[in-house]
Amino acid sequence: MNQTKQARNKEKILEATINELNQKGYLCLTIEGIAAEAGVGKATIYRWWPTKAHLVLDAFLMVTECAFQFDSSDSIKSNFVDQLKNLADVFSTTLGRSMLAIIVEDQEISDAFYKSYLSLRRKDSASFLQQAMEREGIKAEVNIDILLDMLIGPIYFRILIYKQTPDEHFISELVDHVIAGILPACSGK
Amino acid sequence: MNQTKQARNKEKILEATINELNQKGYLCLTIEGIAAEAGVGKATIYRWWPTKAHLVLDAFLMVTECAFQFDSSDSIKSNFVDQLKNLADVFSTTLGRSMLAIIVEDQEISDAFYKSYLSLRRKDSASFLQQAMEREGIKAEVNIDILLDMLIGPIYFRILIYKQTPDEHFISELVDHVIAGILPACSGK
Repeated sequence: MNQTKQARNKEKILEATINELNQKGYLCLTIEGIAAEAGVGKATIYRWWPTKAHLVLDAFLMVTECAFQFDSSDSIKSNFVDQLKNLADVFSTTLGRSMLAIIVEDQEISDAFYKSYLSLRRKDSASFLQQAMEREGIKAEVNIDILLDMLIGPIYFRILIYKQTPDEHFISELVDHVIAGILPACSGK
Repeated sequence: MNQTKQARNKEKILEATINELNQKGYLCLTIEGIAAEAGVGKATIYRWWPTKAHLVLDAFLMVTECAFQFDSSDSIKSNFVDQLKNLADVFSTTLGRSMLAIIVEDQEISDAFYKSYLSLRRKDSASFLQQAMEREGIKAEVNIDILLDMLIGPIYFRILIYKQTPDEHFISELVDHVIAGILPACSGK
């Protein structure tokens, strides 16, 4: 199989994974069902992915690959509102919810998720926030990692524990409250 | 069976649940094992709990019943540092981690957890924070629910997704950052 055909086959299998997941849910997801949906043999799937959890991880990475970019010409607030809306949307799909449930249960997939998604997103967010604060002359002594946890922690918390999808109103207020802690004092409040 | 003996029996079964959980983990936890550890018949357990998930929920509620009280004579910071340390400790035990994994998977237990734990804790926290802010003359226009999410969201996030137990240093900085957003302006920063 040449490389183009191989890449196309992999994509087809990951798309079939998402379709099957949407129809049946993670518990009833099977390699057999995915193979049938993709029109390939089970052996083809097992050549690349040892378990259905690995398939879900790769399908998640495929879907989120081009999902969100920071825009340094726009404000801190607008960027984080967009990023958190995006995050809430992604993790409210069947694919996103399955991904979270797998991470909570499975240490190996959780490590892979950290390396291939979470740490990269964190690096982007931290570098955007650092530069934006410098541009806007904000010199507050803040711990960027903690600020980012204050932004994204509540989104994961609402989805995983409250089983809610945070809406734009919630997200906008959340970002306002986090930014209130780093803005220069004497804002007239 | 009289009521005292019944209560004692239930307690013994919940203690056995915790012991078995610590030894075997949730996946290998069985009603049979718990019955043997508690010295009761399986039928006695099934009379009160339909599944092992229900047993874990009640064991969790038993352990956390007297766990944390707010102290209105102490500062906002000190109260929330203690509360979050307590939260991080509870959810870092095998019992706490199993509880979280069940909540993510199981809608019925998740609803029961919300009613019998989360909503009560939230009510206590909100009323303490509201009163403490009034006492300290803080008039910032804040959304108490969002502030509480900014405090506890990162703890759940670190435990569930990063698989870390937040330490006292992290918690202290987190509480400082959240409080910075509600303190009167012109703090000299």
